[in-house]
Amino acid sequence: MNPAVVLFSGGVDSTTCLAIAREEGFAPHALAIRYGQRHAFEISAAERIARALEVPLRVVDVDLRAIGGSALTADLAVPKDQPIGTGPIPVTYVPARNTIFLALALGYAEVLGASDLYIGVNAIDYSGYPDCRPEFVRAFEALANVATAAAATGRARYRVHAPLVSLDKAGIIRRGTSLRVPYELTHSCYDPDLLGRACRRCDSCRLRAAGFREAGVPDPTEYRQGG
Amino acid sequence: MNPAVVLFSGGVDSTTCLAIAREEGFAPHALAIRYGQRHAFEISAAERIARALEVPLRVVDVDLRAIGGSALTADLAVPKDQPIGTGPIPVTYVPARNTIFLALALGYAEVLGASDLYIGVNAIDYSGYPDCRPEFVRAFEALANVATAAAATGRARYRVHAPLVSLDKAGIIRRGTSLRVPYELTHSCYDPDLLGRACRRCDSCRLRAAGFREAGVPDPTEYRQGG
Repeated sequence: MNPAVVLFSGGVDSTTCLAIAREEGFAPHALAIRYGQRHAFEISAAERIARALEVPLRVVDVDLRAIGGSALTADLAVPKDQPIGTGPIPVTYVPARNTIFLALALGYAEVLGASDLYIGVNAIDYSGYPDCRPEFVRAFEALANVATAAAATGRARYRVHAPLVSLDKAGIIRRGTSLRVPYELTHSCYDPDLLGRACRRCDSCRLRAAGFREAGVPDPTEYRQGG
Repeated sequence: MNPAVVLFSGGVDSTTCLAIAREEGFAPHALAIRYGQRHAFEISAAERIARALEVPLRVVDVDLRAIGGSALTADLAVPKDQPIGTGPIPVTYVPARNTIFLALALGYAEVLGASDLYIGVNAIDYSGYPDCRPEFVRAFEALANVATAAAATGRARYRVHAPLVSLDKAGIIRRGTSLRVPYELTHSCYDPDLLGRACRRCDSCRLRAAGFREAGVPDPTEYRQGG
């Protein structure tokens, strides 16, 4: 089986993406990024899931707090109970995050000898995030094919797979359920408590809860009390 | 003056690039990346130069040792006394390094409200590095213009400037000398001693020394003894 690098956060989307990469015949290598996110708890979720699925996991540290500009890395409040996907780009947008993540995935792919990258972006739920759109994925693929030693020497032709790009959260959960994704191990909340329990009120929690509800799949999330 | 983000390592090329950005009318914001390089001494050179030129400097940490694959970040020997630019891609190539660096620069630019990025790549001396070529620079510029909130909302049109791309080291040093670049503060060596003195024998040292020689500019480098 050919190796593929899967960007992996331990959330619903990237865990589903990992299962799809495996179903599509690749040996997935998970890459998690600890970027100074306030919800660094997701890294421990990523570790648990990688163990459960018997997938190798690499964690790279990049301190995006040095750049700032986002409620996820700077000292800004995570918005709660706001309409999703209707207003301007949300403050939880991390500048150039998926560009940075795919760049790191590309470096790791080159080291592994992998030509395939998976990223769990979707343009439906995150219409406010420019780096979740199909044109972003295509532009990165074009970049990868001039940026690397492997491509420059003709050893590789990179493909960036975004299998969730046109699915909504319910569609992702239905797909993942059919692949037996262990959603009870995943973590989504932007603002968890110290035990990792979800707040129920940030954008990410609400998208997740609505996704399970619409998919007709029991929501395994552990919420904190009085959130 | 509009702000521009300049990728900055404290070496000859990026210091020249910084001076060019300023000459071209921008307020340069230097961004240095501490990526686990064995020559992390270059960060202290970057700090000295930024102070001398009165340019703000931000340092971002990204641990590329977690990815490996290069003599600059892994436990491989730095080659000495080898022909340059003739063989295959050298082991000092860091997988996807400039993609990762430009991605970080893009994030910082977005936070600053800058639309201009400068990178001191050149395709002459580093013909073995795929991410130093003009087509790489153009592909990244295209990516930037779909990847970011600023571009998606029409607030910015990114430009990636690579003013050294068609200069050789002597040409860069001549250009920088005319801009009064303080080369005595710069650092190039891949394998310095603990005092930061250059080895004289790695690719980077030899390109630098030949550049000063060809440019007819006195070489201010402090070399270690018996290198």
